[in-house]
Formats: sequence, structure tokens, C-alpha cells
Amino acid sequence: MNVARKIISEHLVDGEMTPGTPIGLKIDQTLTQDATGTMVMLELEAMQLDRVRTEVSVQYVDHNLIQQDHKNPDDHLFLQSACERFGIHYSRAGNGISHAVHMEHFGKPGTTLAGSDSHSPAAGALGMVAIGSGGLDVALAAAGEPLRIKMPEVWGVELTGELPPWTSAKDIILEMLRRHDVDGGVGRIIEYYGPGLDGLSAMDRHVIANMGAELGATTTVFPADEEVRRFLTSMGREGDFTEIVADEGASYDHHESIDLSAIVPLIAEPVSPGNVRPVSEVAGKPISQAYVGSSANPGYRDFAICAEIVRAAGERANTAVSFDINPSSRQVLANLINDGHLLSLVTAGARIHQAGCNGCIGMGQAPATDTISLRTTPRNFPGRSGTMEDMVHLCSPETATASALTGVITDPRDLADKYGISFPQVTDPETPIIDKENLLAPVPKEEALQVKLRKGPNIASIPDFDGVPDAMDLEVMLVVGDDVSTDEISPAGSRVLPFRSNIPKISEFTYDIVDETYHVRAAEARDDGRGHAIVGGTNYGQGSSREHAALAPRYLGLRAVLAKDYARIHWQNLVNFGVLPLEFTSDEDKDAINSGDVLELRDLHATLAGGGDVAVRNATQGTEFRMSHRLSERQVDVLLAGGVINVMKERLGGSGEPVATDQVAPGREDGPGDR
Amino acid sequence: MNVARKIISEHLVDGEMTPGTPIGLKIDQTLTQDATGTMVMLELEAMQLDRVRTEVSVQYVDHNLIQQDHKNPDDHLFLQSACERFGIHYSRAGNGISHAVHMEHFGKPGTTLAGSDSHSPAAGALGMVAIGSGGLDVALAAAGEPLRIKMPEVWGVELTGELPPWTSAKDIILEMLRRHDVDGGVGRIIEYYGPGLDGLSAMDRHVIANMGAELGATTTVFPADEEVRRFLTSMGREGDFTEIVADEGASYDHHESIDLSAIVPLIAEPVSPGNVRPVSEVAGKPISQAYVGSSANPGYRDFAICAEIVRAAGERANTAVSFDINPSSRQVLANLINDGHLLSLVTAGARIHQAGCNGCIGMGQAPATDTISLRTTPRNFPGRSGTMEDMVHLCSPETATASALTGVITDPRDLADKYGISFPQVTDPETPIIDKENLLAPVPKEEALQVKLRKGPNIASIPDFDGVPDAMDLEVMLVVGDDVSTDEISPAGSRVLPFRSNIPKISEFTYDIVDETYHVRAAEARDDGRGHAIVGGTNYGQGSSREHAALAPRYLGLRAVLAKDYARIHWQNLVNFGVLPLEFTSDEDKDAINSGDVLELRDLHATLAGGGDVAVRNATQGTEFRMSHRLSERQVDVLLAGGVINVMKERLGGSGEPVATDQVAPGREDGPGDR
Repeated sequence: MNVARKIISEHLVDGEMTPGTPIGLKIDQTLTQDATGTMVMLELEAMQLDRVRTEVSVQYVDHNLIQQDHKNPDDHLFLQSACERFGIHYSRAGNGISHAVHMEHFGKPGTTLAGSDSHSPAAGALGMVAIGSGGLDVALAAAGEPLRIKMPEVWGVELTGELPPWTSAKDIILEMLRRHDVDGGVGRIIEYYGPGLDGLSAMDRHVIANMGAELGATTTVFPADEEVRRFLTSMGREGDFTEIVADEGASYDHHESIDLSAIVPLIAEPVSPGNVRPVSEVAGKPISQAYVGSSANPGYRDFAICAEIVRAAGERANTAVSFDINPSSRQVLANLINDGHLLSLVTAGARIHQAGCNGCIGMGQAPATDTISLRTTPRNFPGRSGTMEDMVHLCSPETATASALTGVITDPRDLADKYGISFPQVTDPETPIIDKENLLAPVPKEEALQVKLRKGPNIASIPDFDGVPDAMDLEVMLVVGDDVSTDEISPAGSRVLPFRSNIPKISEFTYDIVDETYHVRAAEARDDGRGHAIVGGTNYGQGSSREHAALAPRYLGLRAVLAKDYARIHWQNLVNFGVLPLEFTSDEDKDAINSGDVLELRDLHATLAGGGDVAVRNATQGTEFRMSHRLSERQVDVLLAGGVINVMKERLGGSGEPVATDQVAPGREDGPGDR
Repeated sequence: MNVARKIISEHLVDGEMTPGTPIGLKIDQTLTQDATGTMVMLELEAMQLDRVRTEVSVQYVDHNLIQQDHKNPDDHLFLQSACERFGIHYSRAGNGISHAVHMEHFGKPGTTLAGSDSHSPAAGALGMVAIGSGGLDVALAAAGEPLRIKMPEVWGVELTGELPPWTSAKDIILEMLRRHDVDGGVGRIIEYYGPGLDGLSAMDRHVIANMGAELGATTTVFPADEEVRRFLTSMGREGDFTEIVADEGASYDHHESIDLSAIVPLIAEPVSPGNVRPVSEVAGKPISQAYVGSSANPGYRDFAICAEIVRAAGERANTAVSFDINPSSRQVLANLINDGHLLSLVTAGARIHQAGCNGCIGMGQAPATDTISLRTTPRNFPGRSGTMEDMVHLCSPETATASALTGVITDPRDLADKYGISFPQVTDPETPIIDKENLLAPVPKEEALQVKLRKGPNIASIPDFDGVPDAMDLEVMLVVGDDVSTDEISPAGSRVLPFRSNIPKISEFTYDIVDETYHVRAAEARDDGRGHAIVGGTNYGQGSSREHAALAPRYLGLRAVLAKDYARIHWQNLVNFGVLPLEFTSDEDKDAINSGDVLELRDLHATLAGGGDVAVRNATQGTEFRMSHRLSERQVDVLLAGGVINVMKERLGGSGEPVATDQVAPGREDGPGDR
């Protein structure tokens, strides 16, 4: 067996390890960050969870560090209170990026992790199966539910040889992206093995595992070998080590081989991490920014190498360049200070930012118009930097620093000649400063149960929803066409996103691009005790996976959607939040419905349980038609209960039945979403 | 003679040193920061300046460091190119706060400074007369023109005794604010002297001089004594030292005395720097933030003392507190790293931010709702932090750190008992790291003249304006009432401020709160070759001093304002940008004018030059009336030339006549403005 299947087999709750079939995985650890974590905590509150049921759950504050008004600091206090309430570790603002800090203090070979951040697979560097998921999935995992995914194929990548000078782990993952582009890993776990691993530290492996997300992979796994033992020992956690390596002659579903000695410095040009070329082919273009940091290059060595290069060169950053250093964690910062590296960078003209995600997720550090920004970050999607039509290039710390010195894109191998220097040897400190005290440990259960959640004016509990009744009379509030996206249902953007933790408030934006009266009419009907329906076409709810597109209309009284078919994730979200998704059996039935019509649905409980079609009578027009559904038995139970949160609430109250969220919903495929 | 009058007498170009009378001062140095500097540079461009005529001009980038889109980084590149073009030092982003960096590298005893930042008086710590001014005043000073002010009174403040343990310079200026509130210094220069100075380092004096602005003082002056020599020597600039101390028995217009040994830790409660009480009276209130930094506490010791306190206490910041450290300069940061202080702060849980103004001017670090923020910054005006109804308290680094440790407002003297520690002794490093290389020196003149200004899409040159013609037919585009403020004429806020460097764009917001058709109608008339007039009541143009309120309507074709009377600064701005400000001689004349009327003005050149009233014929109504004006001869010349910039353009081209901006305009007094 390979490492991935070993770990999965130890955590398999449901299903079999046949690629493409549904499985349920027991989850040992959860990771949440502040941008997604507030909703997760509100879901735990709504489930009436007493205390998380994982081995370790950690809430990080790393995304929303720019406090321009009360909202972000209010979120931080809310998250801290929720951590106290639910028994979760709290990593306060300034401690750094979730993935880096998790490696330092919590990652543990052989365990599973669900994280509400797409780069959660980074933890695979320590021999974990770590999967990025939506907020509700992580909330369920925290409450002890299995994570439901399709069993991935395992893609074995053998590394041989040794990296040449002036290259590093970033160039390896860029080589993978050069070969396979941004969808090469879809449906797969990437597992690295082979003699080439010997030269890669645990944090080097983090670089590669982190950006496996850019290949579209479910996750990336490395063996837990002697290097992982060394790393954990240096972190004061030798006790957390278990060796997990692939069996001799382990088999993989796919094969790949990389000769590290043939790696050259690589760069991803705009506007995709898959646009990879050798740095030498684009060298000489002027840059305005060189940016080091993010979860894609978070290790001590990723900063120390920059410091050693500028010190060896004896030069300051080119006057045309903003040289931005974003320490990945408080602990990394402390060690960089202690070893003199931070001073080298400050002297070289670097701007030292607080530890966190910062510009990687567009929180500051946007580049100037029509100028090139070189970044060690994982993504260069258009506009992600904050500047429209930006020109972000992704590269290694070596390439970023070489270019910071010269002011143009520079192959770091050219530094040898230019400054007469050789590639600096950087190793992790043998006895690094360990900073665990600034992580707040969970409070004891007795005390925790007394903690009140601290909600600023912009944070509101998730409302209570009742289950689907046996009979419903629903007014059709909106008739829409094909391919309606979740961006139309619940828009994103700076107008709406600030209300992400406030369903009543965010519901006022529901469908307002399409019909700004919808939310008013819907809320009025709801307040009169009447639910409503929406009628849609094909591919209903395509696009972003955001749960607000189900939660907000449900809050406004949406009880059923009648559509031709659905995008997969939104269909799942409707079920999860208690909205009945029905499908037309004939296109003409849709065309005959007008906005304002009242639809009568009867005998729903028996019909849904029986799996049969639902009879709908259009009372306004006096017509009748039948609609199908694709609900599993468990999903019917979820709907009757009023959504997954109610099921969990009941279950956590002690009823006993297993909870159902079939993560493998029927319906159209849509993108990975941007939750 | 006292120090202030000594320096002024050496720089007196016009007038006599009689308090309250107009004087012109030769300016040796200018200081601009990025928020105000872009407009200054555009003004220098419009004047067609070849090269600054000061000894030293420095442009800092410290305010707009958060780059959420292209605008701030574009500004940085523009400012850098303007510095290259005009012979100005450029301090790049990350170098720190203007006032701190200016002290380190440029401040020079006996010189004068005009700065487009209200805390420019901080340089008075080195025995300078440093005055905060509007952007155009600083542009004129950079072009070699005298700064015109009213001669202030000099207020001698004698310091005796020695500060007790756990107090520092901040408590001295808070004591001044406790005694005299925020208007106690209006029309005065505050000059400190006496034996108490011996215990105050140059950077301690900076703390006091900086916050003289909060007393409303014109500026604050300290003698250039042995301590200043020591400071300059430590900065590698002993050659810049000249001793300047008050003559034996020097006289002052006002007297004050402070016994430093009686100082206790003080705190300014919301929402004014004048709301000062002893810390002991408010101790015990929970806080959510302790913030150290800003130009009000910028010295090495202001951070080192915090580090020594947390180290001595052996404690981390209370878990309820965000402990924010904002290094004031790159050099201070380098020395804090070098001496181990930064590591102490990181270990204690502090969030380390990039060197700059940051939260002090509401650029991040807003506090959470309904929580107390303790700050070493100079101002706690309502909402300045970014959080509405904030509760910002101003205090010393000692008080901020003590409270960070305990989580409640804490008199730092209580730390002695609580942790069994004594007041740490902190002295400046004898041979500090000097960081001058990251300041870009002016380029040689030949090269500079070839430099092209680098303007992002949001930066536009100031348009050319012609002079007031001899005859004008003006349509009345708008009739407004009394007390119209510059916030109505040219609004502030996030909707408009991003266009601060783009007059054509910002003109689209002119008067849009009052009449959103105005800017369209005005621009149409202008494009047809027709100017227009605005009719106002009393106190026209009150409020903020922003020049856009004159520049933007002038761009739209405003040629004359007819009002009952004017707020002083806006009247001055109208003249400076070539708009004729006339005053009704009878209220009824105003009432008879309707929007849309066409007014005929004739023989303007001779009439204005002669000082007589201007005859106005309302061609629409067939009436005629007379209006007065308060223009000096020089101001008439400015109007005929089309504004100060045109006068300067001509003058810099070699015409020779002295330029006229009578800074002592007639009209109502208004506030200090917020430029």
C-alpha cells in the first residue's frame, strides 16, 4: 500500500477505497481561518455543539488583519470567544498563516485534517491526509461527523537526484504545474516518494503539498520519514512522530518521475499558476515588486535564503522595487530575528509586514498599474492582487530576491557571476525558538460551557429553520432562466461580503441584481407565515460554492426550488439548509408557470420517502404536473428535519442516528468554488 | 532673545516680529508626506519649477501604505519620479514616518521647515522653527518663496526637576494638554527651557514638540544644546550642529512652569487630546488594544522601554489584548532588532507592523466595537481610528505596555508591585545602526531635467487656467445659502478622496450633495467657452481647508463667487487658484439673483487695480448693483495672472517680480482645517 491508502484505510468509516466511489473519512483535526471560520463557528452554535469531537481543532486569524473599521477586530473577538466555548485552539492575530503554524505545533503523521481553506493539503508534508473543504463540512467534522468525498486515485511521483544550486522546492511544484497545468491533479491524491526526498526538508515538502491545490488535486501526501522525525523533534514534538512510508513496491494509479538535478528556476506568468516557463526565458523585464511569503513559501529557509543572498551580494533592493517580506509565522519571525536574517533584510530595504496572508489574498500590497510583481505566493489569478489587469508572476524566493536586487526578472543563477557569490547554504536552526505560548489552548469543558459568544453588531446567529411540512402552498416569487449562478443569487464583492457573518443582513442582497423587490416580497410573505418557491432553468446555482446562496433565501422563506436541473454544489447546499430541490419532468411545465402563481404540494413526507415524483398543483392556473427529485433516504431525513444543522442539533442532543450529508450529490459539475 | 525669535529673525524676509502681524519667513527645508505630497508635486509641475530652491526637501511615503488596489502604489511611483525630477530626497515606503526619519537624517538646528503635515513642528526638538502648512504653501516654499504667517507670541515653558520612574515625555505634553486644552497654544510658539531639559533626549523632546500641534500651537521650539549635539553626533551628523540657546534672561510673551518631579502617568480619554486625567483615576477598565508607535512616540526608547517591561515582567500580552507595535522608522526597527528588543516584543505576543503611520491615521488597526484602545498616538478624535464611536485613549508607552500585560488600564507604577520589577533604564544605543542608504538622494540637475513624471491612471496634471479677463458674462449656475462648507463644495470620504490627485475626475463630485447637475451644466458651459458664477451667503467656504474646493470648480469654469462674506482659508484658496471673490454690499442684491441669470462684469482690470467696487449688471433681470472686494494689489495681480501657479510659472521663467500670497486673508476665522 502507498502512504495515502494506508492513512485512508485507517480512517475509513463508510465505503470502499475504489477510486470515484463515495467514502466517509474519520477526521482527526480541523483547521479554520478567520475568513471562513466565523460561519463555521455560527454553524457549531446552531448545532448546539457542546465541544468539538476531534483530537485537535484550531482556529487561525491570518486573512483579515487589516482593520479599517470595527468588523475585522469584532470577528477576532467573536472567534476567540467561540474557541473558548467549543474547546478549540485559538491562534491570535499576529501568530501567522494557518498552514505554517499548524505544521509547527499540530501536524501529526498518520492523521486526517479537514480545513476550511483550499491550501489545507499543505499538512500532507508531515504524512497526513489533509483536505480543503467548505465551512459546513468542517463544522460537521468538528462535531465528529465523517468527511464525505469521492475516493481519489493516487498519483505516485518519484523524485530522483538532487536540486541544483539556486533552485528550491518551489521550482519542483512549478515543474509539476508546467507539465500538468491547473487541472492535472483533479480527482487525485499526489504522493511523492523516492530518493530525491532526502534533500527536501519538511517545510520544503510543505511548499509542494500546498500548491498541489493549484494542480486541482484532492490533496498531496508525503511519507512520514526520518526528515519528518527531525522536524517534529526540532519543534519539541518528537512524541508526535510515527513512521509512515509506502510498502516496498507499493502501487499507484498513475506514475510520474522528476529528476531533480534537471530542475531549472521556473516562473508562472500571468494569469495562471499553470503558465510556467524557465525564468531565463523571461529574464530582463522590469519589475516593481518582489514579494516573499505566503503559505506557498512559509519556511524559515524561504526567508533566510533571501537574507543570505542580499547579504552576500552586499546590495540593497533596486530603487524601483518594493521588496515585501511577509513572515509566515510569529515563530519564523522570532528565529529570523534571532539569527540576524531579519536585520539583513531590513538593511537591504525590505518592507517587513505583520505575519499573515496579506497580499497573497489581496489584503494590501497590490502592485502598481502596468508593472510586474514577482511573488512566492501560490496564485496569480487575474485581479487577485487587488490591481485589475495585474501582472503577477509566481516564483521561488531565490528568483524573487535576485530580481529585487537587479530590478528586472533575473535567473538567480546569474547572481553567481554578477556579484561573485555562490549559492548560500541555509539550514533550519537546530534548536529553534519555539513559540507555543501565543497559541491559546482550549479551556476546560466546565468553564467552556459557561462562555458566551461575543458578537459584534455585524455578527448574527444562524436563524432556526423548521423542516419541510407535509403540505405547502408556495407563491412563486421569481422565475429565472438557465445557468443562474450563485453570484446572482447571493452576490460577492465589497458591497456584500462584509456581512458574511450576518444572514439576516446578507439576505437583503439576495437576487437583488435580478429583481431588487424579491427580498422584500419574500420577507413579507414569510412574516405572514407563507413560504415561497423559485422557478429556474438548467444548471441552476452554478459557480461559487458559497453557502449563503442557500442560507439567505431560506431565511427569506424559500421552501422549494423548481428547476430543470442543478449545479452539484448548490443542489447539495439547498438540501443541507432544508430547501426542497425539485426537477421538472417536462420543459413545458416550467414555461406554464408565472411569477405570482401559487403552487400546492401535498403528501410530501410519504412521497419523498417513497422516492416517487411530487405532484404539484398550480392553484392560480388550475393545472397540475409532476416533478422528480434525486434525494437519497438520508437527504429526505435532512429535509424533513429542516437541514443538516437541525439533524446535528438533534443528534448532539443524543438521538443516535448517523447524520447524512451525501457529499456526492447528483447534478452538473461546477468549478471548485471559492469558499 | 529667546530661541524662537533668534531663528525667526535670521529668516525674516518681510514684516516685523510684532505678534499678530504678517511676516514672511525664508524656508530652508520642506517635508511632504504621500497623502498631501502628490498635490504638491503636481503644483510644482504646473509652476514649471526646474529644481527645488531649498537646502533640503524630502518626500516621505508613510501614510498610504495599505495597497488594496493600484492607486497607492501608483502614487508611490509618481512621487519617486517627481523627486527625481525636482531634486527632492525620496524616502521610500517602509522607511517610516516622516517626522522620525527627518530627525534622524535631515533636521538641523537654526533652520526653518515647512511641512505639509500638521505634526511637522516635531522638528522643533532640534532647535528648528518647523511649521505645518497647506500643500500649496509648501510647494511655494520648495520653489523658494517665503512662508507667510502671522508672527506668533512666544510662550516660555520652564521645566524643572526630573521625571519620576514610570513616567516619560508623553506625560509632560499630556500635562500641558491637561492644563491648557486643545486651543491653549493658538497663535503661539511654545519654547521649552530650564534645567528639566537635561533629562530629556532629543527624541523625548520630539514627543513634546510633535503634540504641540494638539495644543493648537504654531510650532514648538527647543534649544539646540549639548543633548542635540549628542543626538546629531550619534546620527553621524555632528557637522550639522550649531548651538542655539536663549540669551540669559530672555523674555517671553507668556510664562509657564512645570516641575517634572510632580508628573504622574496621564491619559487622554475620548474624544479629545485635551481630556486628560491621571491614569490612576481610570485604572481597571478592560481594554482590547494597546498600540505603540506613531510620530508622537517615535524614539528608539519608546519601543525599547516596552520591550524591557515585558521582558522584566516575564509575561505575554493579556489574551484579550491586541498588542500592536508600529516601528517609527527603518532605522529604529534595525536597532530594536539589533539590541534584542524586537524579539522580546514578538515573544510577548506583539503584532509587528511595517514602519509607518498606520493606525494613527486610520490606516488599519481599528479597534473592536465598544472596546477601549490605548494608544501612544497624538489624536483620539471621534472615528479617527476607523471605528465609529471608538474609545481611543492616549497615553505613554509605559502605560500602554502595563495595560497590555494586565488587560485593563493600568498605572505603570503598579507594575513594580505586581511583578516585583523596577523601572527599566533605557538609553539610546551609543553607536546606533544608521540607515541612510534607503533614502534616495536627489539626482544631479542635468539628469533630473530629463525625468518624466510617472503618472498612473488616477494622477492628472493640474489644468492650465487663464487670468480674469477685463469683461466677463457669467451664468449663475448655483445659488446657495449661508455657511456652505467645503465639504459641500468638494466632499471628502472614500467615495471622493481616492481621486485627490486628479482634478478633472474629482471635479465631477463638486457640489453634488447640493445639486448633482451642477458639474454637468458647468462643464458644458465651459466647453462652449462660457464661464460661470456661484452666489452664496455668509461664511462661504467654511470648514476644511482643502484646496480642491477652489481648484475643482475653477476647472469647471467658475470665474467669480458672489457672497455675503467668506471663511478665511477658502477665500484665500479662491484667489490662489484665480477665482474672483466678490462681496455683496446689500443683502437684497443677493436675494434678487436667480439661478440661470446672466451677470455682466466690465472694466474689471482697472476697477480691481483701483480697489473700487465692481459694477455687476444682471442682464436677465435688467438690474444693476455694486460688489466690494478685499483684494490687495498683489492679490489682484494673482487673479489677473490666473492664480498663484501662473505667477510662479512666469516668475520661475525669469520675470523677477515677487510673488504674492497674502496668507493673512480677510474674512471669517475657521478651523485649522484637515489638509
